Amino acid sequence: MKNAVYFQSGGPTAVINSSFYGVIKAYCNTDKIDILYGARYGLEGLIKGDLVKIEKDISKYDEIQYLNGAILGTARRCLKDISIDDGYQKVLSTLKKYNIGYVFVNGGNDSMDTADKLNNFFLSIGFDCVVIGIPKTIDNDLVMIDHCPGFGSAVKYVVRTTMELFLDINAFNPGRVTVVEIMGRDAGWLAASSVGAKIFGLGPDLIYLPETPFDIERFIDDVRRVYNEKNRVLICVSEALKDKDGKYISMDEKLDSFGHVQLGSVSKYLVSLVEERLKLKTRNIEFSLVQRCASHLQSKIDREEAIGVGEKAVEYAINNKRGMVSIVRDSDKPYKSHFELVSLSSVANAIKHLPLEYINKDGNYVNDAYLTYIRPFIDEEEININSGLLFLKK
Amino acid sequence: MKNAVYFQSGGPTAVINSSFYGVIKAYCNTDKIDILYGARYGLEGLIKGDLVKIEKDISKYDEIQYLNGAILGTARRCLKDISIDDGYQKVLSTLKKYNIGYVFVNGGNDSMDTADKLNNFFLSIGFDCVVIGIPKTIDNDLVMIDHCPGFGSAVKYVVRTTMELFLDINAFNPGRVTVVEIMGRDAGWLAASSVGAKIFGLGPDLIYLPETPFDIERFIDDVRRVYNEKNRVLICVSEALKDKDGKYISMDEKLDSFGHVQLGSVSKYLVSLVEERLKLKTRNIEFSLVQRCASHLQSKIDREEAIGVGEKAVEYAINNKRGMVSIVRDSDKPYKSHFELVSLSSVANAIKHLPLEYINKDGNYVNDAYLTYIRPFIDEEEININSGLLFLKK
Repeated sequence: MKNAVYFQSGGPTAVINSSFYGVIKAYCNTDKIDILYGARYGLEGLIKGDLVKIEKDISKYDEIQYLNGAILGTARRCLKDISIDDGYQKVLSTLKKYNIGYVFVNGGNDSMDTADKLNNFFLSIGFDCVVIGIPKTIDNDLVMIDHCPGFGSAVKYVVRTTMELFLDINAFNPGRVTVVEIMGRDAGWLAASSVGAKIFGLGPDLIYLPETPFDIERFIDDVRRVYNEKNRVLICVSEALKDKDGKYISMDEKLDSFGHVQLGSVSKYLVSLVEERLKLKTRNIEFSLVQRCASHLQSKIDREEAIGVGEKAVEYAINNKRGMVSIVRDSDKPYKSHFELVSLSSVANAIKHLPLEYINKDGNYVNDAYLTYIRPFIDEEEININSGLLFLKK
Repeated sequence: MKNAVYFQSGGPTAVINSSFYGVIKAYCNTDKIDILYGARYGLEGLIKGDLVKIEKDISKYDEIQYLNGAILGTARRCLKDISIDDGYQKVLSTLKKYNIGYVFVNGGNDSMDTADKLNNFFLSIGFDCVVIGIPKTIDNDLVMIDHCPGFGSAVKYVVRTTMELFLDINAFNPGRVTVVEIMGRDAGWLAASSVGAKIFGLGPDLIYLPETPFDIERFIDDVRRVYNEKNRVLICVSEALKDKDGKYISMDEKLDSFGHVQLGSVSKYLVSLVEERLKLKTRNIEFSLVQRCASHLQSKIDREEAIGVGEKAVEYAINNKRGMVSIVRDSDKPYKSHFELVSLSSVANAIKHLPLEYINKDGNYVNDAYLTYIRPFIDEEEININSGLLFLKK
């Protein structure tokens, strides 16, 4: 009987550990896997042979489903082309040493690319090992899946915090021009989710996303118009706005060690523009790591699906199926979904942008159609603050 | 029979509206006050005569106890010396016009100074009007009170978010040097509260507060030492660190319209220092407005006490007592407190700093004694994440 290994890859989320919990849970319920290992610090753990043995007793791991972070440790290390990366042989050596026949890769696009590369490598050399991808990213930019585990909890954080900021900013008259910067890299899904606060009458005034070219003059016009009308402006922006030439709008740019652009603060840049051009008081707020950390706002649906893709990964693996576990939405209300397997190569490195049909024609807001998509995560909010605005009439 | 007016002053908190709710609740239970008004946008509302009438039906206001912000509107406008400020006469004119005999001022130090000035003004001209202060500030820097309404909820946010950031940062190896910037102006109470995360094994490595002079060389030594030991550093700092000459440590300084120093980002400055001097990867995170907004982490004790000081203010007023309603702690565990009246002049403009006995001798951490002080707000946390670190042994 073969052993299995699971590792976490890329940025932590509020529910990546829930997927780990799901893998352990399925492992405890099968007699097809002898030992389950966790590789520490992502692919690095497989390369270095740094594995920990997981006990076959789910009761010891109950709490990890509620923990943010990546409790095995994670890394950005991915596999490059086989001609230049000695990682393949080192991983193979570890797998042989530990008699591993199943590899579970829990991550986003880059990680699915690594899973795909490993899978192809094993097939090409006839090494008997099944690779399964378990999706994870708050950016929600994986293709072939309705939404990614991690996204729902981040949506819940963004919506709730936008509502609270709305209430804070509306307390002053005049209020400031406040620019909130939200993660998502080149995809606007998470920043667009700030529109959810509108359900409670506490939505942002303007939303800018990387899917439409950012025009500084139009932005200044938008801010001036809203300020003249409301005496304050709440703006939510994606961290990766680009102008019509594809150049990032931000204070500064640098490349990280894997060649990805590290973005400077777009919100800082935008408020400096507003101060200079409109002479208004401003504030910029970056949700920063907190938006992917906020396990106290973990979405129940998100957690359950994260556990589900982990469990399902084990089920596919022991039936000798390869690919990434995907989530398919069956209905919006009541919200229902099921799992399917999709090919790793179809997911690897592709980016799913927010469809333009969700963005208004002026490129400064999100349509109500998008609310249907994110609503399952918002409807978990238990606190109704609808009527809190009775004193805020202009 | 006289009427009453209530107004909100200074920065919003997660529970200032709970105090408003308490005032309304007590108003609904007394026959000594005819009409209760709310002044919109703080003292400005009293100056301009912009009042709204509150209905004598508490059921209409149930939700506001859970809302952050300042739903009547607030302002930083305070009273200056009577020789240069025409606000006194304008307020008097509004009070006479609306037959007001009770004024409730809900705010922090500056607001208590305004309450004191109003009170003295009324006494000096023989105008029959009782002024009562209702405390509020996340900075917790009022004297003559065990802790201020608003602080407990902010503590809960800081502790919980520090725990979550710890888990996120520990997911990478090596991790970054992360500097978290926490509000509090010249008092370190809130930044010190980050130590609460230590109860769960998820505390920061270093804490710097404005009560001890900040020394750059010692800071660099501290960071180097912790990094060498742990491969990552989590640092919590107060927004208003000062060097031994009393100069603020920050990127830039400006004065706001009331002469208060507007601080530049100290965390941004500190990470730039670490990058330059130690060549390490860094990140700075500002909790910004979110720490005073987070009504989804509203503390139950904080909310109940905020309601209590509001109710008590009405009780004192109708018994012709003047002053600020204070909270006295009777016991730590089980936590118990009661309310007392203290003089406005004793509170006005004074600042209660974090006592040095809570700070370690190296000035880079907070002693366990402080945990006893903040523990009532932390013990409300329902999620036990103690054992989540089982994989994170070095």
